[in-house]
Amino acid sequence: MSKNLTKREEDYSKWYNELVVKADLAENSGVRGCMVIKPYGYAIWEKMQAELDKMFKETGHSNAYFPLFVPKSMFEAEEKNAEGFAKECAIVTHYRLKNDEDKPGRLMVDPNAKLEEELIVRPTSEAIIWSTYKNWIQSYRDLPLLINQWANVVRWEMRTRLFLRTAEFLWQEGHTAHATKNEALEETIQMMNVYADFAERFMAIPVIKGVKSENERFAGAEETYCIEALMQDGKALQAGTSHFLGQNFAKAFDVKFANQEGKQDYVWGTSWGVSTRLMGALVMTHSDDNGLVLPPNLAPIQVVIVPIFKTDEEFDAISEVANELVSQFRRANVSVKFDNRTTHKPGFKFAEWELKGVPIRIAVGPKDLENGTFEIARRDTLTKEVKAKEGIVNYITELLDIIQKELFEKALNYRNNHITEVNSFEEFKNVLENKTGFVSAHWDGTGETEEKIKEVTKATIRCIPLDRKFENGNCVFSGKESVGRVLFAKAY
Amino acid sequence: MSKNLTKREEDYSKWYNELVVKADLAENSGVRGCMVIKPYGYAIWEKMQAELDKMFKETGHSNAYFPLFVPKSMFEAEEKNAEGFAKECAIVTHYRLKNDEDKPGRLMVDPNAKLEEELIVRPTSEAIIWSTYKNWIQSYRDLPLLINQWANVVRWEMRTRLFLRTAEFLWQEGHTAHATKNEALEETIQMMNVYADFAERFMAIPVIKGVKSENERFAGAEETYCIEALMQDGKALQAGTSHFLGQNFAKAFDVKFANQEGKQDYVWGTSWGVSTRLMGALVMTHSDDNGLVLPPNLAPIQVVIVPIFKTDEEFDAISEVANELVSQFRRANVSVKFDNRTTHKPGFKFAEWELKGVPIRIAVGPKDLENGTFEIARRDTLTKEVKAKEGIVNYITELLDIIQKELFEKALNYRNNHITEVNSFEEFKNVLENKTGFVSAHWDGTGETEEKIKEVTKATIRCIPLDRKFENGNCVFSGKESVGRVLFAKAY
Repeated sequence: MSKNLTKREEDYSKWYNELVVKADLAENSGVRGCMVIKPYGYAIWEKMQAELDKMFKETGHSNAYFPLFVPKSMFEAEEKNAEGFAKECAIVTHYRLKNDEDKPGRLMVDPNAKLEEELIVRPTSEAIIWSTYKNWIQSYRDLPLLINQWANVVRWEMRTRLFLRTAEFLWQEGHTAHATKNEALEETIQMMNVYADFAERFMAIPVIKGVKSENERFAGAEETYCIEALMQDGKALQAGTSHFLGQNFAKAFDVKFANQEGKQDYVWGTSWGVSTRLMGALVMTHSDDNGLVLPPNLAPIQVVIVPIFKTDEEFDAISEVANELVSQFRRANVSVKFDNRTTHKPGFKFAEWELKGVPIRIAVGPKDLENGTFEIARRDTLTKEVKAKEGIVNYITELLDIIQKELFEKALNYRNNHITEVNSFEEFKNVLENKTGFVSAHWDGTGETEEKIKEVTKATIRCIPLDRKFENGNCVFSGKESVGRVLFAKAY
Repeated sequence: MSKNLTKREEDYSKWYNELVVKADLAENSGVRGCMVIKPYGYAIWEKMQAELDKMFKETGHSNAYFPLFVPKSMFEAEEKNAEGFAKECAIVTHYRLKNDEDKPGRLMVDPNAKLEEELIVRPTSEAIIWSTYKNWIQSYRDLPLLINQWANVVRWEMRTRLFLRTAEFLWQEGHTAHATKNEALEETIQMMNVYADFAERFMAIPVIKGVKSENERFAGAEETYCIEALMQDGKALQAGTSHFLGQNFAKAFDVKFANQEGKQDYVWGTSWGVSTRLMGALVMTHSDDNGLVLPPNLAPIQVVIVPIFKTDEEFDAISEVANELVSQFRRANVSVKFDNRTTHKPGFKFAEWELKGVPIRIAVGPKDLENGTFEIARRDTLTKEVKAKEGIVNYITELLDIIQKELFEKALNYRNNHITEVNSFEEFKNVLENKTGFVSAHWDGTGETEEKIKEVTKATIRCIPLDRKFENGNCVFSGKESVGRVLFAKAY
């Protein structure tokens, strides 16, 4: 197993691209901008899905499935939303291929099979879903409608990167409808909190909760709540968004309900989503120059057992002990793999599982058999220790919890050390050029200023933190009045 | 709750269409040929997915995800497969909309955003997956490759019906690669057996295992194994297929491996799938004129508790008992719903849960409280009985097992009574016109005869059963020699 992984210091972006491929998470496909999610990467995504799905159901949501295609006339009904996605969407125009008479064995689009109306491959599903909700909602008794969908979506991005920005990606999108503005707002905030809770407890990624500035808001939303994470290179990553849609989509699709007094009113909406982009965040938060580091709560394999042997007899004796250990771990709900391949040497296996980020490695050799011990190695700290086999399963389950907690704390320390308050634009630029991370600065609240700052520094407002203090100050760029700081950063 | 469900006798097809909508399984969308799978229908599909996914993993498969789009040149590489799907595929030709200057507020396809190469929305993924496998397989050590994908696919069907035939549908598609022909054949048969096991144990649908005639074979396969079920109207439904691909796709995509002797050889392939079509089979196998009948193993709600009350005091007293029962069921892993809506009368609730096929209904009224009893109603038999509350949870869990078993037996009896051996074409036609079901007949083995029989009777060969006896006879149509019977039927 030759790793040859570029070091983060040398080229963080190259390190990331190589690691995603070498650790068998994903790779580019033969289709422009679309990725193949490989089994090991998909197994992590499945664990994310399972946890999120449970959290959505616990908060009263049900899953459903809506069409992949959106007819053009439906797509354009909510103007801002349409405008926001029109420039990067895949469009189906025909429904049949025929033999190309000029090129034997080749096919061509059949010009006689042109659709009367073009179909947009969904970049997001508000349009198709609200056009359906119109028939589902008549009275307040039909509300709230709390639905989630796991699906693929397509946004025709010109510059793509595995997980972070791909033409097709997988995600979930919640779409809810409510009788009152307050209830819709509460739902929006609840789902942002669900995302934050998931990010912190499972991904071990600390996040900042906030709202987006108008420039960064979802097209068609009244307000976009978000969770923002910080990667090891000091760039921010938007890890989840939850949109308060007001009555915009209800008006665009004429979704009204009779309230308790029998009066007709437009429904209030929300939508919220996280995507396979989270995989990129996971990689960039914890991993190192040796490869992936996975938090135990999302690792497809939490413990790997590697036998160290020279003879068949040794292999048999170690296998017996290892198989017994495997059974014990399974009973304790620890996902474990006994790497009993005889085609590869221990060194190769060590490097492979290190690259793939398995949190704990247990090595067993002839000496361990004699002494009744195991060699335990932690992936995150790269430390090793020898432990007696008595109580090993308890020890390991506790160690998994410790690793989970320490990964979060390490990321939290890094993040907290990379939020810098600045009071001048010079300082602002200095931080972005040197220390990087979040820059906490006063802003005059205008899109023009935000745009100009972006032109000069490439940094955008990541969010207006929900817990910010009200503090009078002056915008670092325009000098105009401000009532509190917002967080700027360069972002993925 | 007004049911107004057409009776099966009157118009089976209308009954089916109405039931799927009224029971909240699915509905047609604003997109031609595409359905919306509603939360209740999707909850059944999720249970199917969970069980199948477990079975796939237990047989060594991993999930992954491949792109939605297939470039035309890749699509056409395996000629038979391309030919089979070319006439009904959605084609992406452009990647951007722009403002329509003639119509303010409207969008149009931007003619300057034409793709260099058209993209086909996958109707099945052999092409994109085998083009990927080429890079994953070098040596026998990389084999077998056992991968499954849960995905949406699109086939541009002209006449669609909810679940049974839709332009977009959800499915899983397994795609495996092997070093030897035998191993690939074993995999093909193993997965057919997994499907049969799933259909019988979870869906309570008896199936016949067999192979398809050449006419009905998957485009690009050497052999298609299938499971065939029989609906209540005597029409057959193909419930799952497993294809032995030979080396066809390996040759089309140049997927070779070095065997143990170091020689290069083409890889052997299989693919296998089941889809949301199974939802149609589930509905049509068990349901009746009152609505859905769901087998307990797939019912999202296995037991519903309906309170019968006049006063608030009665409601409170019943709720206390019901909530305690709910806790007991949850501990016993029975999925239960206490329908405590005060906005609807018991009669409405009874009809609603009957329509939705909940296997067991428990009614609790003031008299039951006095007597320490419950009224238990079975959805499948529409029978009622009063039971003492002692031991009720055990009784219900056993009853769920009994219902599951009896639904299967009822369907099995019906199916077995609708396999008719015929020895002349007159008999053949008679059966199809009157009793319907499967017709077991000798066939000369030619596609021409099969085609002619189809023209006259609309029946096709559903399968050559794996367990058929070798028996000399004469083709019912051509009179030519035959060595065994095959099963014909009209089919969905």
